[in-house]
Amino acid sequence: MLQNIRVVLVNTSHPGNIGATARAMKNMGLSELVLVDPRSFPSAEADARASGADDILAAARVVATLEEAIVGCSLVMGTSARDRHIPWPLLDPRECGVQAVEQAGQGGRVALVFGREYAGLTNEELQRCRFHVHIPADPAFSSLNLAAAVQVLTYEVRMAWLATQSLPTRPEKPEGKAEEGESVTADELELFYAHLESTLVEIGFLDPERPRYLMSRLRRLYGRSSIDRQEMNILRGILTETQATARGLPHKRRDK
Amino acid sequence: MLQNIRVVLVNTSHPGNIGATARAMKNMGLSELVLVDPRSFPSAEADARASGADDILAAARVVATLEEAIVGCSLVMGTSARDRHIPWPLLDPRECGVQAVEQAGQGGRVALVFGREYAGLTNEELQRCRFHVHIPADPAFSSLNLAAAVQVLTYEVRMAWLATQSLPTRPEKPEGKAEEGESVTADELELFYAHLESTLVEIGFLDPERPRYLMSRLRRLYGRSSIDRQEMNILRGILTETQATARGLPHKRRDK
Repeated sequence: MLQNIRVVLVNTSHPGNIGATARAMKNMGLSELVLVDPRSFPSAEADARASGADDILAAARVVATLEEAIVGCSLVMGTSARDRHIPWPLLDPRECGVQAVEQAGQGGRVALVFGREYAGLTNEELQRCRFHVHIPADPAFSSLNLAAAVQVLTYEVRMAWLATQSLPTRPEKPEGKAEEGESVTADELELFYAHLESTLVEIGFLDPERPRYLMSRLRRLYGRSSIDRQEMNILRGILTETQATARGLPHKRRDK
Repeated sequence: MLQNIRVVLVNTSHPGNIGATARAMKNMGLSELVLVDPRSFPSAEADARASGADDILAAARVVATLEEAIVGCSLVMGTSARDRHIPWPLLDPRECGVQAVEQAGQGGRVALVFGREYAGLTNEELQRCRFHVHIPADPAFSSLNLAAAVQVLTYEVRMAWLATQSLPTRPEKPEGKAEEGESVTADELELFYAHLESTLVEIGFLDPERPRYLMSRLRRLYGRSSIDRQEMNILRGILTETQATARGLPHKRRDK
């Protein structure tokens, strides 16, 4: 189950942090590391700090963008040290561990996303995350070392996982959830947002010159809904029909 | 209260770990560091890894033995990666955090003791500890980096402390956003569903003769999202604009 949970490091500057991340992951039983545009990798410094977690470094995938890193994930959580203008569903590390294990236990793939050493994740990157995770550090000295942050979150993932293992009889899924389909993945959600945005421009609701926080707010709304595949098909269908209407095409009342 | 909880590092080899320990401590609100016979201290490497926790390094006491380091402490807990021959009261990090905060809250002094990078604490040193603390790592790769172990235990101390302060482990919502969090009422939600339904009919997506389960599915989706008033205004605005488009009215790109 833990193999469904990946760690994503975005634009890491210090290769030592990549090595220390690999070590923390392996200590906590995780194995999938994805590096978004690291400054230096592979590197002797990363190898040294990995202290035996070389297999994780060797298997690490290097990609160019966060979007590539989270393909296939049904739950994406990103660490955030700062208060943002737009409030976002926020978890502490313990809740993050529980959510990750719950999702992974249902067969979903989970990404824990960590930002740059000095600047964290951008607002745009944070908007691709369903939850933001805040490590409750002393506000007077709140910036953790990158690998230390990875250690805290992966530790909480392991604690949550151990808790599920020691329960001899896990309760069944709540009733009425059975027919609800699997959650859509992060990349499917991105395609929906792109479709939504272009439709809103087309009907004149969204001014691309003055987008304000409209898309952020819509991302927040739909992001916390755990949209399943059937619902996604409905929403995409509505958008397609709205565009057809905007373009003056005849109604196609198909057998839905 | 947290000032009653000290971190003791025994015979540390790598000064970088001392610096990273200072940073982790300061992040978590601890301040008292005691070094038992470190190989190299002070050191430029420790300063670099402390990343601003210089005050903790500057105030660190260097002593010759563990006995000196734990003078005055009413509770001493030592980390142990290995199973020992002699069974000993064993805590996980969470229990360790709770015990430390409880003792410190009663005015007692607490020591969290960490051993050597490669060999941990000796049996003799472990026998000076009332509890042993085991970080539940993967048994196949169980040795954490020293500073990572400090991070985990000090994080749990902080979580336990925040709980006693009834302080949130997550930051409060930013001020001035009050109306954003306010959920809409059931009747407002009904007005939205009616508006949604008539719009879907108007764009030809919903056939009133054969509605199927479309509205039920959309109700389920939006119903579980706890829509706030601002989001509701956005959704209603999109519907209004979609209807205007369907009726061939000109786009009214108002100042939104």
